[in-house]
Amino acid sequence: MEIGAEWLVDASGCSSDALTDPRILRALFDAVIHDLDLHPVSEPLFHQFPKPGGITGFVILSESHLACHTYPEHGVITINLYCCRPRPEWPWRARLHELLGATHVNVREMWRTGTLACSPAPDDRQECLSSTEPSPWL
Amino acid sequence: MEIGAEWLVDASGCSSDALTDPRILRALFDAVIHDLDLHPVSEPLFHQFPKPGGITGFVILSESHLACHTYPEHGVITINLYCCRPRPEWPWRARLHELLGATHVNVREMWRTGTLACSPAPDDRQECLSSTEPSPWL
Repeated sequence: MEIGAEWLVDASGCSSDALTDPRILRALFDAVIHDLDLHPVSEPLFHQFPKPGGITGFVILSESHLACHTYPEHGVITINLYCCRPRPEWPWRARLHELLGATHVNVREMWRTGTLACSPAPDDRQECLSSTEPSPWL
Repeated sequence: MEIGAEWLVDASGCSSDALTDPRILRALFDAVIHDLDLHPVSEPLFHQFPKPGGITGFVILSESHLACHTYPEHGVITINLYCCRPRPEWPWRARLHELLGATHVNVREMWRTGTLACSPAPDDRQECLSSTEPSPWL
């Protein structure tokens, strides 16, 4: 049973200045949220670590969450977008290049899953099947 | 270049009551943070969605972040623990069974990575190599 999808995005070659600017990371969050029609339940948080550290950003969504960590000393940002509602893939490569100067972007899509908490033995097979709700992903 | 590790933990068969009780999820966060010697930069947030919805929990760590989403209607919790400092694996299966009644626990460990933002052509090979810092994971 699929519960949701999560994109793990690791981007390199980014501008160190962009990775330490919460306004640019906020613009990134706003673009993802707008383009994918996501719904924040509160304002995004951006925690700035002392230099040479980066920024951790996070926002809780009705659809799950969006988070980022930046590593300005390496020119790297890592992003998690977790959605429990089917969404198309955002154009991570093109947009992270535009916004942050990223030159390498690795995108992995992971499924988050639940398993029926019963064994499909003959006696309870019907119970198992009846508790399987249609996946919103189908 | 490894930037950090992330554990994606999906657990099923949990008690619906536990999955809607922020005190129990707070106890889960506290146990992970204590046992792995992690360092929150602020108090954990727990957002409770209207019934039959679950809870989203999140805390920013010096080491990155810990997040959870619960799906009480399915008896499922999904957890992300992202650490940019090498940590041993938490005993997810045993502890999620004790705390939440989980009967099935799937643990995936993912590497978060950065790529050198230069091509190792003959002319700039030395520059590429010199910018490769030792990985904290080695």
